Amino acid sequence: MERLHDERIKRVRARMEEAGIDRLIVTDPLSIYYLTDIEVHPGERFWALLMSVGGGLRLFANKLFSLGETSIPVELFDDNADIARVVAPYLLGGVIGVDKTMAARFLLPIMDACGEVDFVVGSDCVDDVRAIKDEAEKQLMRRASEINDACMEKLAAFIHEGVTEKECAEYLDSCYAGYAVDGLSFPSNISFGANAADPHHRPDDTVIKEGDCIVIDIGCRKDHYCSDMTRTYFWKKVDPRHAEIYNIVLEANERAEALVKAGVTISRLDDAARDHIASFGYGEYFTHRLGHFIGMEDHEKGDVSSANDKDAEPGMIFSIEPGIYIPGDMGVRIEDLVIVTEDGCEILNNVDKSLRVLGN
Amino acid sequence: MERLHDERIKRVRARMEEAGIDRLIVTDPLSIYYLTDIEVHPGERFWALLMSVGGGLRLFANKLFSLGETSIPVELFDDNADIARVVAPYLLGGVIGVDKTMAARFLLPIMDACGEVDFVVGSDCVDDVRAIKDEAEKQLMRRASEINDACMEKLAAFIHEGVTEKECAEYLDSCYAGYAVDGLSFPSNISFGANAADPHHRPDDTVIKEGDCIVIDIGCRKDHYCSDMTRTYFWKKVDPRHAEIYNIVLEANERAEALVKAGVTISRLDDAARDHIASFGYGEYFTHRLGHFIGMEDHEKGDVSSANDKDAEPGMIFSIEPGIYIPGDMGVRIEDLVIVTEDGCEILNNVDKSLRVLGN
Repeated sequence: MERLHDERIKRVRARMEEAGIDRLIVTDPLSIYYLTDIEVHPGERFWALLMSVGGGLRLFANKLFSLGETSIPVELFDDNADIARVVAPYLLGGVIGVDKTMAARFLLPIMDACGEVDFVVGSDCVDDVRAIKDEAEKQLMRRASEINDACMEKLAAFIHEGVTEKECAEYLDSCYAGYAVDGLSFPSNISFGANAADPHHRPDDTVIKEGDCIVIDIGCRKDHYCSDMTRTYFWKKVDPRHAEIYNIVLEANERAEALVKAGVTISRLDDAARDHIASFGYGEYFTHRLGHFIGMEDHEKGDVSSANDKDAEPGMIFSIEPGIYIPGDMGVRIEDLVIVTEDGCEILNNVDKSLRVLGN
Repeated sequence: MERLHDERIKRVRARMEEAGIDRLIVTDPLSIYYLTDIEVHPGERFWALLMSVGGGLRLFANKLFSLGETSIPVELFDDNADIARVVAPYLLGGVIGVDKTMAARFLLPIMDACGEVDFVVGSDCVDDVRAIKDEAEKQLMRRASEINDACMEKLAAFIHEGVTEKECAEYLDSCYAGYAVDGLSFPSNISFGANAADPHHRPDDTVIKEGDCIVIDIGCRKDHYCSDMTRTYFWKKVDPRHAEIYNIVLEANERAEALVKAGVTISRLDDAARDHIASFGYGEYFTHRLGHFIGMEDHEKGDVSSANDKDAEPGMIFSIEPGIYIPGDMGVRIEDLVIVTEDGCEILNNVDKSLRVLGN
């Protein structure tokens, strides 16, 4: 593992140099884990890795944390410490990059303690490295999605007359537990009928009824890496207009996936799906970006949206998830994860996407 | 509900005035829920309530959020918006308070866009109001702890020969599910034997064995409010030295709880527990503060530590959780939640605290 982490740190330093950042304060516990193999759940306490572009590394850790053995120097403090005073002496001059998620309660006092030092959001230096998965990570991403595929099939088979969204979510938890996952990637999103018009609906006591669409957007974390997939089914029967909408979303999904390969501008994927949906008059009902990057977190840095004019690179992993949401009526979303390759992509989800009516 | 929220907003405004804060950017979704009754799970998207000391309120919301009806003006934006440009026009001049958890990716660009405006951490204005629970909140806190008491008893009865920490955690999940809780307050902490020497140990495949201590630190959220309790048991038998340690921690817990009432300096509670533990030579093994405030979050603003020289006020709710941790051997922690009253406190946990050896 040591060599893997050295390689990752080297890649981050190269990005710091490009960005003109002299020192980088990494506070995202997952980024620190990614770079050092040290996993801490700091809660509201301060936990940081300071990287200097010239070479030095230093950890800042509350004495309560269990760090295990490390060759990185550690500055320890206790719950009563003034964090700004602990950290500021290491930030003399230059441009300081901070993590995008660094909390104001640490950032503002540190800025005050440092005086005339330039602070910028610098986590791209880590996030852009994290966006390109190495072989070990790809393997973990494949495994998490294999489990997700299996659990999606189990859940589809479980759905029955009288079932509620919440019961589905609970059943799904038990499916995941069978694979000894770390947890969910995000709270499961299981929506029947009109509830599916809200892409962020949470499972409630709604009972399934004939003609409902069933949107299932689920994911698990296994060995730190996330899966995330959506399938939309129908219960007992499908209204012809709903079937039309389904097939429009499906084709939007497939058109975008067909375009994925190294070198394609990422916004073109969003365009392809959106143009297809718009050509049937549903443009205003596709209310979100096409997808997001994913890895140790369900949503990592990187939009698959019209705003992302970067090129896809081999090893990037993101979701392709077009949707159409008709308020008061229904919603459809179809989502896969893909790994960008030199000449195309590897689709991590293998659950059938053709229109499926359950319960018959 | 409307009147309750008006009252809360009035209390926050009074604190803003005291603190010399002209405008407050509230970004903690729970604080926004507390002040407006609007619940949003923004993920990595921007979601804020701007409060002006003079009276105005304004929400900043991504178009994807479902806000429901509200009389508060809302500034809507989409995923491609430049948040700094959306927000900065409302921050002309004066002192701007920001939430302690506000992320650098929003804060630094907004600071840049605002030029010579003074930014300070201002969430105390909300957090100090949230720290004093009103009657409706106390009732919810009592209910969450009732459920926690019941689940602790069930779990103690479930522990059996050959059981692992993880199996205990899974059984506990099923207990909570029976009470239709919102979720856990925090990942359950169940530690056998030497694992308990790490106060932040996560349940693993360790199998229980004779003579182990069993530290169970658990909590659930019910209707948005959290419970949090720790009990320590022993399996089959207890080493006399472990029993001695147990009783020292128990008395530390009881001494601190006996001191809680309106007007007591909070640091005195920590001192009382710590002095007692130190008097038996275990001072260095009590490695954390005595407790923390709690409400909609397991850890809310407010330490029960030697650093907190504020006086307890009626309606404050916090934990009293002394512990002794012997590396390589065992740990003991005993924790209750208490509500401060005029002349004492109401202890929310009723699970027996006398030394208990399970499995006989």
